Amino acid sequence: MNETIKQLSSRKSIREFTGQSVKDEDLELIMKTAQRAPTSVNGQQISLVYTRDKETIKKIAKLAGGQKQIENADVFITIVVDFNRTSFAVSQTNEIQNIDKSAEGILVGAVDAGIMLSALQVAAESLGYGTTAIGGIRNNPEEMIKLLNLPKKTYPIVGTTIGVSTKEAKESPLKPRIPFESFALEDIYDNEKVKEGVLKYEVQLKDFRVKNNMNYMQSYCEQMSNYYKKIYNRKVAKSYETQGFEFID
Amino acid sequence: MNETIKQLSSRKSIREFTGQSVKDEDLELIMKTAQRAPTSVNGQQISLVYTRDKETIKKIAKLAGGQKQIENADVFITIVVDFNRTSFAVSQTNEIQNIDKSAEGILVGAVDAGIMLSALQVAAESLGYGTTAIGGIRNNPEEMIKLLNLPKKTYPIVGTTIGVSTKEAKESPLKPRIPFESFALEDIYDNEKVKEGVLKYEVQLKDFRVKNNMNYMQSYCEQMSNYYKKIYNRKVAKSYETQGFEFID
Repeated sequence: MNETIKQLSSRKSIREFTGQSVKDEDLELIMKTAQRAPTSVNGQQISLVYTRDKETIKKIAKLAGGQKQIENADVFITIVVDFNRTSFAVSQTNEIQNIDKSAEGILVGAVDAGIMLSALQVAAESLGYGTTAIGGIRNNPEEMIKLLNLPKKTYPIVGTTIGVSTKEAKESPLKPRIPFESFALEDIYDNEKVKEGVLKYEVQLKDFRVKNNMNYMQSYCEQMSNYYKKIYNRKVAKSYETQGFEFID
Repeated sequence: MNETIKQLSSRKSIREFTGQSVKDEDLELIMKTAQRAPTSVNGQQISLVYTRDKETIKKIAKLAGGQKQIENADVFITIVVDFNRTSFAVSQTNEIQNIDKSAEGILVGAVDAGIMLSALQVAAESLGYGTTAIGGIRNNPEEMIKLLNLPKKTYPIVGTTIGVSTKEAKESPLKPRIPFESFALEDIYDNEKVKEGVLKYEVQLKDFRVKNNMNYMQSYCEQMSNYYKKIYNRKVAKSYETQGFEFID
């Protein structure tokens, strides 16, 4: 096993930070490294808005639903889907961009954002820092857009904290994943395997909860039910539209 | 610089393969490692459908627009947004899942897919393999859905090739990225910096083209214009709808 595989295999979200700083040169290296991540048709339709300003980080924590784990982070990076950049590039050839008016465009932006998020976190973690992905910024997209001064054709889709992990957080046990054979399917999707996987995982996660005295933790089915029986972020489609996007063919 | 940073910093898409095999144990390690990637609310709303079957890979290459780089790959992994799994989990609590009927759900799936894509590629590349992300499967989503036997509430959003890179592909020069200061913006978005970045990059990429005798390569503005003045994948919104998704709040 090489260092990269080791790192990815033991990866966990870090939600408790010591308050120590992420070094300036490390932050730059993290973002420069992540910039090499693949991007659809070399579009580079992602921009980062990063902040170390405590007041701004506090505001983001509040907008994301009052998240302590953001407030205590040293750095917050918002991953911005940026079809404003590409629109300007298209205009240089005297054409008009239309991809932002499509489901294809919205999805290309979202997938590239996920790639960027992962690259930022992997780079940060390789330097010893802790991170957590923050989807909660979609709780108040209009406020995030104002706070970061985002123009039309851009969207603050997800973010990440970066900080120095506490010892306890670093040493906390790795939560199991769904059984591998219900996640990686050969040649065709197998609904029976997927369902069996959920049932087995439910038992495994409950065992894990007991073994680690994590009574506060929900089981998989409980957590999925609590989140997914409703639509918990209610302004996403509307704010995409306000930013000039359309989910059509 | 550690090994992980080195690897990410020199990362490039590999489109030419020797035809040698990806070892079975490596493929398993790649997918197991990637399964540890972060996932929104521990939903694990991604499944992989992987194939080494030459006939299936040929079909995918054709569906994705006739891509030689897929046909010659040893492995193809489709990253499937999977709200079928979570729906089953929700049903175990006698509730009904609604997140798939929302922009929030569609975007969570897409971002998690990007994270998974990146994790798969980083793991594969750490073992010496080459990869390219394939968005072209969205060119014919209905056919991909049939081919992979995907149920409702799932979507084949992106894929990746894996193979053994030719020496030439491995040694090809790294294409420059947009200027860093127009990609990573401090505290607020700066439209002037973004525009300046496009103009500088246009010159840099043209210089790179001349220096490397890559006359076939489009400049950034040309490429963005050719792709983004139109909506090049025209069945995405419709096929999402057919799969049971809705982009609403």
